[in-house]
Amino acid sequence: MEELILHEDAVSGNCYKIRLTAALLGLPLERRQYDILKGETRTPEFLATVNANGRIPVLQIGEKLLPESNAACWWLASRSPLVPDDRFDQADVLRWMFFEQYNHEPNVATLRFWKAFVGYDRLTDAQRALIPAKQAAGEAALALMDEHLAARDFLVGSHLTLADVALYAYTHVADQGGFELARWPAIKRWCAAVARTPGYIGIDV
Amino acid sequence: MEELILHEDAVSGNCYKIRLTAALLGLPLERRQYDILKGETRTPEFLATVNANGRIPVLQIGEKLLPESNAACWWLASRSPLVPDDRFDQADVLRWMFFEQYNHEPNVATLRFWKAFVGYDRLTDAQRALIPAKQAAGEAALALMDEHLAARDFLVGSHLTLADVALYAYTHVADQGGFELARWPAIKRWCAAVARTPGYIGIDV
Repeated sequence: MEELILHEDAVSGNCYKIRLTAALLGLPLERRQYDILKGETRTPEFLATVNANGRIPVLQIGEKLLPESNAACWWLASRSPLVPDDRFDQADVLRWMFFEQYNHEPNVATLRFWKAFVGYDRLTDAQRALIPAKQAAGEAALALMDEHLAARDFLVGSHLTLADVALYAYTHVADQGGFELARWPAIKRWCAAVARTPGYIGIDV
Repeated sequence: MEELILHEDAVSGNCYKIRLTAALLGLPLERRQYDILKGETRTPEFLATVNANGRIPVLQIGEKLLPESNAACWWLASRSPLVPDDRFDQADVLRWMFFEQYNHEPNVATLRFWKAFVGYDRLTDAQRALIPAKQAAGEAALALMDEHLAARDFLVGSHLTLADVALYAYTHVADQGGFELARWPAIKRWCAAVARTPGYIGIDV
């Protein structure tokens, strides 16, 4: 297989998703670090050679570059049990991954980033004004997951899939964004189940 | 094949994506309409029987329900030429579909919805305050697409894929959101190429 290089910032849950997927599949990843807070993904060199969208993660596969965390997970996991063969289940995995990027990440991950990494004092007035709406939307996303998980062990089918990996990344550290996970018992149980999966690694590894 | 029912609001580009995918593949879709502006996707009945997330589109496949527009397109198009078999190209199609939901739709589609359907006078102060940031982010997304398309006919590989369908839906009507498409000539050329595809239908069909 081609050499795999992950262009990342280690604190990002979007980057962790890719590391966790690779770890669960036993695939080695070389890691290159960029500090988002220092603007290292917005330099002319980064924009020209890694990602014109100025974002990490980017998975480099030999000479090819693949932005978007969930697309990188898909490349790693395609033809593995993390991506079901069944036509409906495969689309349902993607359903949760799109939900993650649309309803969950812009709220749960953004508040974690603002509160735990940027710091409240350094937020702009415009960012502070968005906090209540993002808090409400993040809670709605977590409540939806909790309701779905109340009657099942994993998001799709009866085994761990990429849907779980994608949503676990920011959910299990949602408390850092001001979301009390104790409110959602099915999510707590599901997080523990994900963490017991053979090959699992934590976000700080 | 099971009966396919699209729960939708016809003016939504996210719903149009699914109709366009089905039309390109020659698949019949029954359509059920809900008026977003009247809150018809937030009723207790809709939440309990169609989508707990209170959103359209939802693709119903026999008795199964599949929310998230791009997941529904994936179900329809899997095992068709709209989804490449090649491992990198398949993930690259998803890369553009995640870009669409993260960088493009929340800006280009939201401004179209606010300006062309809700109406500026009925926006809240909080929504009006977001317009400049959404305008800038939408322009950045369109510029990124334009730069990518300047040297190629389609987003991934040399043929139309779901990446093009997903991004065409709101791009070709971006002027309704206040984005002047004439600024991005490669996008204009690409839109015309999508519209020439056999089986193509317009958003108002």
